[in-house]
Amino acid sequence: MLVLFTDFGLSGPYTGQVKVVLYRDAPGVPVVDLFADAPAFRPQAAAYLLAAYVTEFPPGTVFLCVVDPGVGTETRQPVVIEADGRWFIGPDNGLFNVVVARAQTARRWVITWRPERLSRTFHGRDLFAPFAARLARGELPEGAGEVLNPSTASDWPDDLPEIIYTDHYGNGMTGLRATILSQGARLKIREHRFSWAETFGAVKPGEGFWYENSNGLAEISVNGDSAVDAYGLLIGDRIEIQD
Amino acid sequence: MLVLFTDFGLSGPYTGQVKVVLYRDAPGVPVVDLFADAPAFRPQAAAYLLAAYVTEFPPGTVFLCVVDPGVGTETRQPVVIEADGRWFIGPDNGLFNVVVARAQTARRWVITWRPERLSRTFHGRDLFAPFAARLARGELPEGAGEVLNPSTASDWPDDLPEIIYTDHYGNGMTGLRATILSQGARLKIREHRFSWAETFGAVKPGEGFWYENSNGLAEISVNGDSAVDAYGLLIGDRIEIQD
Amino acid sequence: MLVLFTDFGLSGPYTGQVKVVLYRDAPGVPVVDLFADAPAFRPQAAAYLLAAYVTEFPPGTVFLCVVDPGVGTETRQPVVIEADGRWFIGPDNGLFNVVVARAQTARRWVITWRPERLSRTFHGRDLFAPFAARLARGELPEGAGEVLNPSTASDWPDDLPEIIYTDHYGNGMTGLRATILSQGARLKIREHRFSWAETFGAVKPGEGFWYENSNGLAEISVNGDSAVDAYGLLIGDRIEIQD
Repeated sequence: MLVLFTDFGLSGPYTGQVKVVLYRDAPGVPVVDLFADAPAFRPQAAAYLLAAYVTEFPPGTVFLCVVDPGVGTETRQPVVIEADGRWFIGPDNGLFNVVVARAQTARRWVITWRPERLSRTFHGRDLFAPFAARLARGELPEGAGEVLNPSTASDWPDDLPEIIYTDHYGNGMTGLRATILSQGARLKIREHRFSWAETFGAVKPGEGFWYENSNGLAEISVNGDSAVDAYGLLIGDRIEIQD
Repeated sequence: MLVLFTDFGLSGPYTGQVKVVLYRDAPGVPVVDLFADAPAFRPQAAAYLLAAYVTEFPPGTVFLCVVDPGVGTETRQPVVIEADGRWFIGPDNGLFNVVVARAQTARRWVITWRPERLSRTFHGRDLFAPFAARLARGELPEGAGEVLNPSTASDWPDDLPEIIYTDHYGNGMTGLRATILSQGARLKIREHRFSWAETFGAVKPGEGFWYENSNGLAEISVNGDSAVDAYGLLIGDRIEIQD
Repeated sequence: MLVLFTDFGLSGPYTGQVKVVLYRDAPGVPVVDLFADAPAFRPQAAAYLLAAYVTEFPPGTVFLCVVDPGVGTETRQPVVIEADGRWFIGPDNGLFNVVVARAQTARRWVITWRPERLSRTFHGRDLFAPFAARLARGELPEGAGEVLNPSTASDWPDDLPEIIYTDHYGNGMTGLRATILSQGARLKIREHRFSWAETFGAVKPGEGFWYENSNGLAEISVNGDSAVDAYGLLIGDRIEIQD
């Protein structure tokens, strides 16, 4: 299975152009749009978001990941990461840091292959998609790869006390796994404080709260309304944990 | 064929996560996104919308339907409905009332099966999707089901005099089938009155009107512009029929 | 391969309803959403946009194209165009003018077939989709078609000095192929002037510029921000080329 985690949007041409390559080079392999609205320009927020979703996919899944403000510059490399049997392809800008940090084992290859036609700004289509299709067909990258030590793979925190994604219902996902918080913890964003509730039905309509969402992240929500609108939540908002 | 009728959005993770389950458990079955922007929090509006679309699908089609503000509470049950040979899976919160009321025959099963992992808030992925995949593979629910009497299935009106959906062109679909209206009928929404026209080209640019849309619903539109913007249409706006 | 180029949106019902027909009538043929947000009501802008994307598809690809403000009127015909081996189906309202003008060879058929059920406003589902599925299955239209002379197919300019599309990052695509511009050319939109840069990383954060996008069009962008927001770009904005 091929999984897309990008900031491309679905309606515009970018996701479609990537799929053309995937269908052509890996016919019959299902392609799933996981996120087409990952946090643009923010590889760190995207990294914590990605890590919350990968564990529900079986080993062998190939993730094509693009949040890539540095595309076309020399400052970042295209890479393949293998982490606990799952494959990740994308820019080496931190996007895979959290997946690696939470893995048991991980390896890394820099992609030196270049296609005949490589645009400056659309490596998703020109470079990552053909390479992802190859992996999805079962071809391994050349060589054994560089073995990574998950525990020292980056100096980022285990969990990120920020809003990392807002969904179309107006919920604000945080970079905090709910398991690191006690149910007595309050999350403070600017002047707003949110207490824990088990789920939407446990608070009054219009009331804000945090809860463990279906992927294990602490999420700021309002029963029957948009927390984004009610509190002006933005990706990047800092969160203070008050025990 | 599997058909998704949800308020999940396509860009965020929810539709993708559901498809992962469907592709895994019902490989090779086409999955169609019919609505990913069904009216959130409004099972009644969604019910009239759904009913306008099902008849173009052949018997055997499996509809996975989620507009489910009560997810995670004890007040609603997960159900399977069979209506005129089509299958519907989702919450028992009224979402299938109109489909049943317009059917010749209908049956209903409460889903008692529970997956190993059932999140509080994402039954679409954890409960409805694996069950929908089973039906799509041809497995029937256990037992004969409860036979429903379409004519007494609910006390909702045959047609709903409200705006039930606004599309991205800015058209406002109503819960009124055009066949119950005469061509002389005017639809009044707050202070605005709309007369019938056959189609867009029959009125002046910028003029508002109602017409029978391609699924048989009376729809409020403006030639070459957005009726939503021009008249501030919102889902739930009441409509008065003036003959 | 079937490619959708429409203004239908993905979330609402229209794209899904078209796909139901395609999956039913051309099972197993991959369907790619290229644009679901082509410029609504603007066949000319859409025509220059479409032409920039077709060349990356192999001969035999079938494009179902709908930007069709005149649907349901007698003033436009449904047509099939074959241009350099690729197939295009849609309204004869100029949408294929630029594809034809840039082709080596082109032919044209007026679609006289009518389905049993033809709604006034949704020819995409009722007329174009079943016909596109037929072509995708390898059935040719009847007769030899009318041979078109690309060089005299329309009186539109070779390139359109206007904004023809804005993407969700806030970039503004123009109807100008970058190859017709010198790198010294400046593009002026109202009071704003944009100089050329090779790519995003070549200018300061927050600075506007034009560059050759990944499909060969001159595109107005801002490094790390939205050009649409910064300059109020709208589809249809005129561009003055200052050499």
